[in-house]
Parts: sequence; C-alpha cells; structure tokens
Amino acid sequence: MWDMVIDWLAAGVNPGEATVFIQSRVAEHAELHLLLSMITPRGWLERVPTYKDQQEKLKEKDLSTYGFLGYPLLQSADILVYRAGLVPVGEDQVAHVELTREVARRFNHLYGREPDFEEKAEQAIKKMGKKNAKLYKKYRRAFQEQGDDEALAAARALLDSQQNIGIADRDRLFGYLEGGGMVILPEPQPLLTKASKMPGLDGHKMSKSYGNTIPLDASPKKVDKMLRTMPTDPARVRRKDPGNPDVCPVWQFHQVYSDASVQDWAREGCRSAGIGCIECKQPIIDAVLAELGPIQERGKEYAEQPDLVHNIINEGCERAREVAAETLDEVRNAMSLDY
Amino acid sequence: MWDMVIDWLAAGVNPGEATVFIQSRVAEHAELHLLLSMITPRGWLERVPTYKDQQEKLKEKDLSTYGFLGYPLLQSADILVYRAGLVPVGEDQVAHVELTREVARRFNHLYGREPDFEEKAEQAIKKMGKKNAKLYKKYRRAFQEQGDDEALAAARALLDSQQNIGIADRDRLFGYLEGGGMVILPEPQPLLTKASKMPGLDGHKMSKSYGNTIPLDASPKKVDKMLRTMPTDPARVRRKDPGNPDVCPVWQFHQVYSDASVQDWAREGCRSAGIGCIECKQPIIDAVLAELGPIQERGKEYAEQPDLVHNIINEGCERAREVAAETLDEVRNAMSLDY
Repeated sequence: MWDMVIDWLAAGVNPGEATVFIQSRVAEHAELHLLLSMITPRGWLERVPTYKDQQEKLKEKDLSTYGFLGYPLLQSADILVYRAGLVPVGEDQVAHVELTREVARRFNHLYGREPDFEEKAEQAIKKMGKKNAKLYKKYRRAFQEQGDDEALAAARALLDSQQNIGIADRDRLFGYLEGGGMVILPEPQPLLTKASKMPGLDGHKMSKSYGNTIPLDASPKKVDKMLRTMPTDPARVRRKDPGNPDVCPVWQFHQVYSDASVQDWAREGCRSAGIGCIECKQPIIDAVLAELGPIQERGKEYAEQPDLVHNIINEGCERAREVAAETLDEVRNAMSLDY
Repeated sequence: MWDMVIDWLAAGVNPGEATVFIQSRVAEHAELHLLLSMITPRGWLERVPTYKDQQEKLKEKDLSTYGFLGYPLLQSADILVYRAGLVPVGEDQVAHVELTREVARRFNHLYGREPDFEEKAEQAIKKMGKKNAKLYKKYRRAFQEQGDDEALAAARALLDSQQNIGIADRDRLFGYLEGGGMVILPEPQPLLTKASKMPGLDGHKMSKSYGNTIPLDASPKKVDKMLRTMPTDPARVRRKDPGNPDVCPVWQFHQVYSDASVQDWAREGCRSAGIGCIECKQPIIDAVLAELGPIQERGKEYAEQPDLVHNIINEGCERAREVAAETLDEVRNAMSLDY
C-alpha cells in the first residue's frame, strides 16, 4: 500500500494540490454506499459491462459475492461523497461514471424535493447581491426559454464563484436553474486524457494481473530488456520482411511517446523494412527512460522519508473526511435521517 | 422515530441496562456491512426466505434494489458489530440469525488465520496464570479428544471471566479451543421468547404495514373496540353455533394472555357454544388493558421529558460507538486494512 502511495507521489501527484487519502479510513464512503444501495436497482449493476467481463476472466477468484456486484456502486459513492465535477478515468471506466450519473440523478429526483423549494431558491438569489442576481435570472431565462447551453454554463460558473451563499443555497440554485429540485449530489463527468488507452507490453489491456506492465521502479537495464523483448508484428519474421504498424504493439507506444517526425520514420521504416524492430524500439526506450528518471529520483526521496509520506496521508484523510462529512450531513438531511 | 424510542422505554426497556441508539449515527454498521459484503456469496442472500416473500407481498414498493437484497446482511452487521451472543428475535427472523452465523464462520475462516497462531495462543494461555492455564488445557483436551461439550462450555465461561488477557488473546483462545483460527466475529444464537409468534388482530402475521396492530398509545375505548370487532371463527355465525378455537385468532390471544383455567373455560365454552365470542374476548380485553396501563403511564412521563429521551439516545450512541469501533479495529486488523 505505502509503495503505491510513493509511486503516485513519485509520478508527480502534488500533495499540495491533491488530497491523497485511504478510503477505508473515511467511513463516509461506506455510509454513502449503504444509503445509495437502497435506491439503486439491481439491474443497473448487473448490466455494468466490467461485471460480466471480470467474472469470466478471473474465474479462480470468488467473485460471486454481494460486494462484487456492488463494486461499481462503491466507486459511485467514492465520487459522489466529494461531489466531484470531473473524474479522471481510463476508457474502460467511463461506464462507471455513467452509472454514477444515473445514481446521482435518481437520488436528486427522490430526495431533492423540498415543499418550499421555489421560495427558498428566490431567497437564495437575493443573497448573491443585485448584480449577480440579475445575471443569474437572465441566464436562467435564456436556458429555460431558449435552451441556451452557453447561458447554462455561464450561470453555473457564476454560482461556483459565489462567496455569499452556503452550499445548500448553491444546491438549490443549481437545481432551480434547470427546473428540478435541489441538486444534492451533482452528476460528474469523465475526464479522459489524450492517451486514454495505454496498452501493455503485449499490446493488450495493461493490467498488473496480466503481467504486462513496466514497474515504476524498474532499473534502466530491466526497462531496456522489457521493451527490447516486447512482441512486434508477428508476420515480420526476418529483418527484410516489411511490417504492419497497425498490428504492432510498438506502434501504439510510438503514438504515446514519439513526435510526428519519429512516428513518420518508424511507420515508413517498418512498412519498407528500412529499419529493424530493435531500431524502431530505441526512441521508445529512450523516451521511457527519460520519463522514469525524475520519477525514480522523487520516489527514492519519498522512500527515504516514511514519516513525510505518513503525514501526507494523515493530512489527506483529515481533509477528505471534512468534505465527506459535509456531504453526508446533507444527504442524511435530505433523506430525513438527521435525528 | 422519537415516538418509537418512547414506545420502547414505555414498554420497559431499561436504559440503565440496555444500550438504546440510532443505527445511522454509528458509522461502523455501514463499514462492517461493506466489508462483509465482499465475502458474502450472492446466493446466500437470494435464498433468505423473507426476501422472496416481501418482494411478492409488497409489489407496489420498489424493492428490487441492490440494498434490499443486502438487507439481511446489514442485520448481520448490526449483530456482529457488537459481537452479540444472543439475539432476541421472532420466529420469522431466525433465518437471519442463521445467515449471520454463516457469515461470521466464513469471516473467521478467511481472516482468523495468523501465521504464528499456535505460538500466540500458547503465550496467551500462560497470561491467564498457572491455575487457569491448567484448567483451560484440561477442558480443551476433554473437548478435542472426547468431544465433551460440557468441557467446551466450561472453557468458554473460564475465558469470559478472565481479566488478565486482552480481546485479541481471548479471540485466539476461543479459536484454539475448537481447533480453528482466531474467532474474531463470534457466532450468535437466536433467543426466542415463549410466545415467539404473536399474531395480529386478524390472526395473520402482525405488522404495521398490514394494519392489524393495536398501537401502544391506544385509548382504553379504542382497545376495547379493536378487540371486540376482531374476527373469530368464521364458521360460528350465530350465537348458538359451536366454534373451533384452532381456527380462531382469539384463541391465539388466549394462549398469550390467559392462564390455564381461563383457557379451559374459553375452549370448552367455544366448542359447546356455552359462551359467545364477545364474552370469550372479555378476559383478553381486560388483560391487554392491564398490560397497557403502566406502559402508557411511563410513555406519558417520557413524552413530557424530550431532553431525557435525547440524552438516553445520545449516551446510547456513544456507548454503541465505542464497542463497534473496537470490533472494526479488530476486523480491519484481521483483513490487513489497518494502515
């Protein structure tokens, strides 16, 4: 576990900006998961694509548990407990963010209704001050009467920038904007990186359980060997055989690690048998080593300071707990569980 | 909610002996439920008898949620988080206690193993002092070599009475006694009252959702009316028709509320048409009113002191949290989640 934290910090996660914490130390994840489980239809979970996939792939593990079926819902709780706007995920996790959006929508629909919602929303508008209140009303009208999406985005940004109104009022105004009730759990969006799919050394999905990864702490010698021996286009048996980048895992690496001119050189060289596979891999080996250098340096520094790493996690847990506790207060309040 | 707490206190739950608390205020219930969900096969929950029953009976409610399937497991967590030995339940809940036993057994089997278990157990024996250590060993041998159940019970009582050993050591010695690993979550037993099945006014299962209950705060006049109009043997249409107690809900009430002589009188009188149904009901009406009198008096006292009731709950939550937190520490420790 601590090795993993050190890997993150080494890879560049900045504890000054990011809150790094341990899920099991923040009880609110389990609490929100339990509460959401009461409104989440079983069918939604049974239809999650990763569910059947994993059950087939990892048959030796005992995956037919209640908790395994609910695992994507636990991820939803992980996201919603911090009311995240954007969730950085890989392509295979987009379906989980979509489930999260559905769960949030259902929760808001069921529990976001207050008997005096409109009145409270109008009062909240006034709290923003004359100028902002006027702006909010203008944007709201433009969205509700003409479906103006830019006005909707502008109104949301306006609400985000408000210092004079509390969270509950902001939730009301988010909901009032779109004509619904209070938005207690906002719907998150997936955030994909440019290279949203980084294959493993064999060209298949990268996964520790498939053994096709390069460890962050691999020595330059090991990295060199792993990349040199990674498979290429199986049809290119001899040096003089031309290859096809489209079926070669190395080409996928070039797309991530090489600029346009190196990519051109590799593609042409492969198709014309102008370069050999080892030659083709060299710029990638260089790029991976250049990338790993500073990571391993930072990793070594952190590994030498276990107290610092512990403190980062302790502070992260504390910060996470504060935000999560606030969400749970609002959730319990909306569900009338605040005795 | 507060009315329900007052009902309990009025009915005689003594806050000096019993810990009265609100489940949602003790996050450990949700945490243990989540952890146990990871080791509980879905099939165990799908086979719980109340699951299909309720889904059929209450079709209008949206019961096909993930949480509804896991509801008996939440009850298991409710029990196991306090490591309860006996669980006072009605007959229809015995299956849930049985599920709880299976979940506890599985948990202990999976996580109760320590690499140096035997060595630690032998050390723990020494901590009990020479005399008790000798006794424990004697009982353990008698149970393991001859299957002597009395020796097992005696050894357990001995362990319960030890002040010199901590909880972890006691768990080890419980497990060592029977030859397994550590018993982190002991298996509870159901505790049935003599009248484990108290029917509703219509002779069917008593349930608020079926509308066949007498509220604890019902006025004497209302109680009288409810009992007078409750159904009897449908075949006994006229006063002179003989009746059959075996199909009469009133007879079930006699079994709970009347002594042997009144029961004889009712049974004979019914079968011979010697008494009418109203006459037959009178001793029950008297008994219910006599039972409700002091309950309603206490209820009134508590209702007049909301602060007292709040304090009872607050102290109960505090006490519950302490015990639950201790269990969760051990559970996380066993699962290697104690970073």
